[in-house]
Amino acid sequence: MKILAFGEVLLRLTVPEQLLLEQSDVVRMSTVGTGVNLLGSLAHFGYPTAIMTKLPANHLGLKVAADLRRLGISDEFVGYTGGHLGSFFVELGHGSRPERVTYQDRLASSFCQADVSDYDLEAALVGVDYVHICGIALSLTDQTRSVVTRLSELAHAKGITVCFDFNYRMSLNAGNTHATMKARYQQVLQQADVVFGSRRDLTDLLDYPDLPDAELFAQFTNDFNISYFAGSRRTFEAHDKYFQGFIMHDGELYQSKPRELKILDRIGSGDAFASGIITGLIEQWTFDKTLEFAVANSVLTQETLNDTPIFDKADIFRYLDSDGKNELIR
Amino acid sequence: MKILAFGEVLLRLTVPEQLLLEQSDVVRMSTVGTGVNLLGSLAHFGYPTAIMTKLPANHLGLKVAADLRRLGISDEFVGYTGGHLGSFFVELGHGSRPERVTYQDRLASSFCQADVSDYDLEAALVGVDYVHICGIALSLTDQTRSVVTRLSELAHAKGITVCFDFNYRMSLNAGNTHATMKARYQQVLQQADVVFGSRRDLTDLLDYPDLPDAELFAQFTNDFNISYFAGSRRTFEAHDKYFQGFIMHDGELYQSKPRELKILDRIGSGDAFASGIITGLIEQWTFDKTLEFAVANSVLTQETLNDTPIFDKADIFRYLDSDGKNELIR
Amino acid sequence: MKILAFGEVLLRLTVPEQLLLEQSDVVRMSTVGTGVNLLGSLAHFGYPTAIMTKLPANHLGLKVAADLRRLGISDEFVGYTGGHLGSFFVELGHGSRPERVTYQDRLASSFCQADVSDYDLEAALVGVDYVHICGIALSLTDQTRSVVTRLSELAHAKGITVCFDFNYRMSLNAGNTHATMKARYQQVLQQADVVFGSRRDLTDLLDYPDLPDAELFAQFTNDFNISYFAGSRRTFEAHDKYFQGFIMHDGELYQSKPRELKILDRIGSGDAFASGIITGLIEQWTFDKTLEFAVANSVLTQETLNDTPIFDKADIFRYLDSDGKNELIR
Amino acid sequence: MKILAFGEVLLRLTVPEQLLLEQSDVVRMSTVGTGVNLLGSLAHFGYPTAIMTKLPANHLGLKVAADLRRLGISDEFVGYTGGHLGSFFVELGHGSRPERVTYQDRLASSFCQADVSDYDLEAALVGVDYVHICGIALSLTDQTRSVVTRLSELAHAKGITVCFDFNYRMSLNAGNTHATMKARYQQVLQQADVVFGSRRDLTDLLDYPDLPDAELFAQFTNDFNISYFAGSRRTFEAHDKYFQGFIMHDGELYQSKPRELKILDRIGSGDAFASGIITGLIEQWTFDKTLEFAVANSVLTQETLNDTPIFDKADIFRYLDSDGKNELIR
Amino acid sequence: MKILAFGEVLLRLTVPEQLLLEQSDVVRMSTVGTGVNLLGSLAHFGYPTAIMTKLPANHLGLKVAADLRRLGISDEFVGYTGGHLGSFFVELGHGSRPERVTYQDRLASSFCQADVSDYDLEAALVGVDYVHICGIALSLTDQTRSVVTRLSELAHAKGITVCFDFNYRMSLNAGNTHATMKARYQQVLQQADVVFGSRRDLTDLLDYPDLPDAELFAQFTNDFNISYFAGSRRTFEAHDKYFQGFIMHDGELYQSKPRELKILDRIGSGDAFASGIITGLIEQWTFDKTLEFAVANSVLTQETLNDTPIFDKADIFRYLDSDGKNELIR
Amino acid sequence: MKILAFGEVLLRLTVPEQLLLEQSDVVRMSTVGTGVNLLGSLAHFGYPTAIMTKLPANHLGLKVAADLRRLGISDEFVGYTGGHLGSFFVELGHGSRPERVTYQDRLASSFCQADVSDYDLEAALVGVDYVHICGIALSLTDQTRSVVTRLSELAHAKGITVCFDFNYRMSLNAGNTHATMKARYQQVLQQADVVFGSRRDLTDLLDYPDLPDAELFAQFTNDFNISYFAGSRRTFEAHDKYFQGFIMHDGELYQSKPRELKILDRIGSGDAFASGIITGLIEQWTFDKTLEFAVANSVLTQETLNDTPIFDKADIFRYLDSDGKNELIR
Repeated sequence: MKILAFGEVLLRLTVPEQLLLEQSDVVRMSTVGTGVNLLGSLAHFGYPTAIMTKLPANHLGLKVAADLRRLGISDEFVGYTGGHLGSFFVELGHGSRPERVTYQDRLASSFCQADVSDYDLEAALVGVDYVHICGIALSLTDQTRSVVTRLSELAHAKGITVCFDFNYRMSLNAGNTHATMKARYQQVLQQADVVFGSRRDLTDLLDYPDLPDAELFAQFTNDFNISYFAGSRRTFEAHDKYFQGFIMHDGELYQSKPRELKILDRIGSGDAFASGIITGLIEQWTFDKTLEFAVANSVLTQETLNDTPIFDKADIFRYLDSDGKNELIR
Repeated sequence: MKILAFGEVLLRLTVPEQLLLEQSDVVRMSTVGTGVNLLGSLAHFGYPTAIMTKLPANHLGLKVAADLRRLGISDEFVGYTGGHLGSFFVELGHGSRPERVTYQDRLASSFCQADVSDYDLEAALVGVDYVHICGIALSLTDQTRSVVTRLSELAHAKGITVCFDFNYRMSLNAGNTHATMKARYQQVLQQADVVFGSRRDLTDLLDYPDLPDAELFAQFTNDFNISYFAGSRRTFEAHDKYFQGFIMHDGELYQSKPRELKILDRIGSGDAFASGIITGLIEQWTFDKTLEFAVANSVLTQETLNDTPIFDKADIFRYLDSDGKNELIR
Repeated sequence: MKILAFGEVLLRLTVPEQLLLEQSDVVRMSTVGTGVNLLGSLAHFGYPTAIMTKLPANHLGLKVAADLRRLGISDEFVGYTGGHLGSFFVELGHGSRPERVTYQDRLASSFCQADVSDYDLEAALVGVDYVHICGIALSLTDQTRSVVTRLSELAHAKGITVCFDFNYRMSLNAGNTHATMKARYQQVLQQADVVFGSRRDLTDLLDYPDLPDAELFAQFTNDFNISYFAGSRRTFEAHDKYFQGFIMHDGELYQSKPRELKILDRIGSGDAFASGIITGLIEQWTFDKTLEFAVANSVLTQETLNDTPIFDKADIFRYLDSDGKNELIR
Repeated sequence: MKILAFGEVLLRLTVPEQLLLEQSDVVRMSTVGTGVNLLGSLAHFGYPTAIMTKLPANHLGLKVAADLRRLGISDEFVGYTGGHLGSFFVELGHGSRPERVTYQDRLASSFCQADVSDYDLEAALVGVDYVHICGIALSLTDQTRSVVTRLSELAHAKGITVCFDFNYRMSLNAGNTHATMKARYQQVLQQADVVFGSRRDLTDLLDYPDLPDAELFAQFTNDFNISYFAGSRRTFEAHDKYFQGFIMHDGELYQSKPRELKILDRIGSGDAFASGIITGLIEQWTFDKTLEFAVANSVLTQETLNDTPIFDKADIFRYLDSDGKNELIR
Repeated sequence: MKILAFGEVLLRLTVPEQLLLEQSDVVRMSTVGTGVNLLGSLAHFGYPTAIMTKLPANHLGLKVAADLRRLGISDEFVGYTGGHLGSFFVELGHGSRPERVTYQDRLASSFCQADVSDYDLEAALVGVDYVHICGIALSLTDQTRSVVTRLSELAHAKGITVCFDFNYRMSLNAGNTHATMKARYQQVLQQADVVFGSRRDLTDLLDYPDLPDAELFAQFTNDFNISYFAGSRRTFEAHDKYFQGFIMHDGELYQSKPRELKILDRIGSGDAFASGIITGLIEQWTFDKTLEFAVANSVLTQETLNDTPIFDKADIFRYLDSDGKNELIR
Repeated sequence: MKILAFGEVLLRLTVPEQLLLEQSDVVRMSTVGTGVNLLGSLAHFGYPTAIMTKLPANHLGLKVAADLRRLGISDEFVGYTGGHLGSFFVELGHGSRPERVTYQDRLASSFCQADVSDYDLEAALVGVDYVHICGIALSLTDQTRSVVTRLSELAHAKGITVCFDFNYRMSLNAGNTHATMKARYQQVLQQADVVFGSRRDLTDLLDYPDLPDAELFAQFTNDFNISYFAGSRRTFEAHDKYFQGFIMHDGELYQSKPRELKILDRIGSGDAFASGIITGLIEQWTFDKTLEFAVANSVLTQETLNDTPIFDKADIFRYLDSDGKNELIR
């Protein structure tokens, strides 16, 4: 069992404690990204993982590769080219003060400038069971799109399970029309077996009608011949927050119970959920167990600093067994 | 539009994370004070500001002046004399454990030892629309009182709006009788147009009777011919805290709705509120909008480390638009 | 009035902020242990204290002794021998993510390898009013057990009040049968005047029947001729946590009211409670006042980083006077 | 007396202590750049300064502007546009292990994307006595070159002293021919009054013959009608390093004596030297005094962390008076 | 080309900046050990490496494995068992104040308690070209000795190059006679092809006579049929330190020239040298080039914090090309 | 053997790494002062010590007392009164950039405001063999002078050895005439047995003629009937620094050999030397051994961060045995 992800690696620069950027001269670095978060989590669940990406050909690139290995991700298919790495600053929130992300340019990055000819897709897919593709690559550059297109087709043709995460963000698409983006997503969805997204992705990006969830998701999975469509959301009740997930398979909609959430750092919540779902599919758990597991992974990740989930299965089951009651672990 | 404040600059030494002073060998420095907090906030709202004060004539004074500029406050009217700066230690609270402030001596400070002849008031008032005076100067030294008296009279005579903040603290007045302090406040209030304070300032310091707020504030503003009297307070409901503000103008009492509050560091809450009120007056907003804005500035500041509010108008309006719901900002 | 404790000193290595061990290359050191926590707290309440223990004969041992003195504990009866100190890592929890403790080996430590002949018990007991013994020493090595046996007998014989804390942990007794451990505890309890423990210690370790608290504790204190049996527990109500204590004396069961608890770091909660109870006994307060004081000390300690309570009596009374309402202290 | 600089502001990310990038998860941020370093130093010498530049229109841009003000540089002519700021990582050296700089992309930055029409040159030049232009802008983008050309012409026409620093770096000019770069430099040098550079700039970039310094510099200043040409260099003697400066004026070459150098962080050494030279010109000191002052500023800066010199005149004169002997200053 | 090392992994706890243990409450963690240092360096030179060892079966073990991967070392042959990891504290030196190491117990560690039956030697040796064994394992426990004996025999039998590092330390052998240790070393040396050690190892441990180096080393390599014997040493000249290496092969003694050394942290200097020598053997460089490379790797490592060399070949060649002159690298 | 010191306790605030105050928002706190430094060192040499002083009656005072105990100094004679503690900032030097100290006001401190009636001198002197008085107290306030006068007389009368350290600083005596200060010193010197000072103290403050050291010191010790007069100084040779000490006894001048010095933080060098001299007197070592020991203690202290020497005798003898060669200590 091996999982390969194609995606951008980013340098996250987090202001320490709960200071604002303007209040601090220090930042803590971590190596993140949708693919990194997903694979780091799956590696901690015990599965071999590798990322296919490009890093700068300098000491920053080497540092970041060291971080990938630290997370348990193989850097065998990491190439070194160019000299720029995308990065973003994070200021943690507190109470009603929101967590804040400020991006630096990523379009000039080694990743965004590398096209399909810069990768050896055949080599990277040897022995792979699941391929994960982050939809953000559809918004970045022609080069990243060229990789997504070829990689999804090739993996699909080889019978590898293709996972695709919408991850659609308006802010990254100032220069693209709605029609363009819709077409790009529709093309990739043809090859996808497992899709992560939300109701809004279907209605706003793909122009589906405003149906109840069960109907909407059934229609979507049917249209694109998708085996599993899964997603999560935060809800509010009084002053408390809750987290909940769903999975649609074969016309049936499964939902987890909501879990209470004390957010420390919410970035990466979707990646943690996705890694839990993929784990359930690999292990052929029931959908209820799979959803419980995925929600637990995401809740714990949101109650931890940094994007990348680093919980192992025992951590998750202990959370579920104690019903989320935080007891000291010795 | 330009705002000048006269007030003491203090060095705040905060124990990091949530450690107690006895547990740590490290402190984080910041440059604060009522005038600093107010002007730093107003500068972040886009208004030119300057502080009139004295700092030590050494490298500590220069460091502190650099911090003032960093906050957006002009150091044009900062003088360098003497060799001492007031300072205080802060230990953050948690749950029922209170935040704790320990002051070092401030009476020997450059600020407390400088009297009216050490300042060029005429120069400092050129082009100024609002002057802000912190009432603490009435408790400190004869020297600081001499400046308050002359500055308030001069500004009033020039038609500059005089803002005055009670900021009355028993602990600073061990050596003064009630009668003395009352007389000093009454004198300055004659020149004031905008006053910040609380019900207790009126009943306990100025000996007003125990009337309902509306009546009490009306009588007070009438007695001293004050245009605006504004203040804020924390309230409790079940285990939750709320924050609320009022403004009295022309016999009418306006109140904001209470906002939920998860305190991280409460120092500076009044200064944040005052800066919001002054902004509303400058912008000639309705009292409701002004109060909403001032309360939001104070809530966000109490949910942030350090005294000085550094939110811009967009931050405040985003808080108000999302109704205080903390959503990730990208 | 002087208190002597016999117990192991441990080096606590806490991951900073709220990071996990795998996310950080830095740890904060502190010197802790049941005896250390208890004595540190009693020293802050104004009583002379000393610890009888062994530390490594190297610069680590010297550093730890410096920390003991810093806490106000005399190191007069600290011996230096061997080269190992027990240690443990702490990762703080958040929301439903639990606080996590990872122990390193302690059996090879200077403390665990020293037996009764390595201590001068007579010298250590001179002028002592209370001796405190932590039950963990019964689980560690033959050497530590030899000290407990002799020390408790000797102190009892001299009319010194013997305090004993069950502190029973399954995880430390993989190699001992239930019968063995039960016998060891029963032996020491013969000499004990003040005992700290829980309902579960009586039913699970000492095989008492499942009676209501009042009956159970009465039977236990009667069987072993124990003057005071005291303990505490955490309770849940909706999403909130509470903390509550009891004391059984002369057949009467006293209970405190529950206090709300926002846990920051729960380690040491029992030691904080015990130090409060001993203070009440020393001061001959009523049981209600004693329980209030002990619960307050424990709540404040759990709302503070690190194990060792460092609050003085004024801190505790301020908490009680304000009814746990966290108001800024200037 | 007022100095305006046009140049790029960069975020420097320094690995703490003497760790390598791969060994640390923390970096310290500082706001630097040739213009920033020069102006920060001149501001500390007591002269009003302002920078004309562009920063990202987000919270990172605001943080950087706060840093500029902290250094004493006016941000009146700072514009906010785009969303990227150039940055670089610094790993300090030790012994024979060199200090190492790793750049991130800067061509996508707000500064590199803004052209002459985005600036109000007339407004920025009001009241200005010296304009400083960093030659790196000639290597960056068409946009930055458009500003250099117009700004140097306009300032020259207004009789403002134009300072120009070669700062020529091969590594930034992979895409430009020698001829192109030579022509660009020749064009700007026509307007320059004070030029900072080295022998190698003249021989390698401008194709001057390999003459002795005095002849070479005389010919160069004559060809371009340059009033002052100044530069510095490091020399080695046994295991010790020395630092030395020169200035050519009116056909005469002046040289400082070499000063011993224990480098801590060498970045910014040229900017510190240039700021000293400009100070001497402003103050109309002798060339010997000017050179001594400039060399001292540079030596102290290289013996301090970070690029930007923050010494005041008293610091420099104390160094010169004690002949570089490091005695404790109380 | 693949290198496998058998050796203990240790947690290094370094006091930050140049503080002493008693002055600090913070330590920086790193994962080190002779095998770790050697493999980390070889991985940075581009060779696949793996360590065969045991780590605690808890979150500390997982953290340490993450660190191994970060260094580029495969954790495929890392087993998890027991609950203790050896550790040591490091206080950096300065001037004549020496660097200081304080060990905690390692004999109870997962590594020291695992014997040959706990490893799958056959699996670990698949595809391996070089095996490295650290002599410290001969001093630790019967279990670690059982692994050394079997591993060296098996590797030797398979024709894998066996590298052996004396690493003999009196302090670890308080309980063993000279004769016992000598016999253990003699036994392993029978299987060794590449040996790292010093003159003193031969004369003091193996009882060789006090001959000149060339004769002594020739006799030793002849006696045990060793292909390469290499080592390094620090020398003093005036106030400066130098570092120098040698290699004996086929009766010929090669020596490097001495390189100046400004020690920052000397731990790991021998491992850095050994990794350079093995690189030269792999690459079949001349002995002069090999020695230059090995000495450079060691000098740079001693001028860097932490034990493990993380320089790549380009770093080493740049040092050699610049003849150790520290010029800024951009 | 017990040593009591009377002196001011100061809070030292050190900027971390080698940053300047203006570059950092963090400072590291330590508790220092001439008495603290001397006693901390003597405690590390194994002698019981106590300080007689006053600290603020607040949590800062308690923190500082904890630090005193950490250093091994008894806080039995520490009183709590007032609310201010003297403090100073330290910026470390590098190369020719000097270390820099910036004092805050100390005259308002608890120590400076307490007079002889606030101390129980009789109690503090019980069992004391050596009393140490720092001359700075003669420059501070009438209150501190009143304590010095009475304490020195009382100790002298009781036959306790009185140690007195000139510690004369012009900067503290702006308001006192030369004649006043000379008289104050002359008065105390009458009671002194062991005096620490320099040639300059005798010629500049006491108006002794410019004689050779041996004659000068003989005359001085004779005039005041002083048993031992000792001091130290830094010398320069080429680019290297050396440290050397002397002691005058019974008309004989003894000098140590100079030791090389790589200064990291020079504050406290005199206190370290004095503690070494007192140790030699206590141990009745030869003057040569005493001087070697005292110089070693001072050199090691100057090569360590912070004022207070924390070396034990073994550390000093290891330095002397290795002749100051820095070899790794395991």
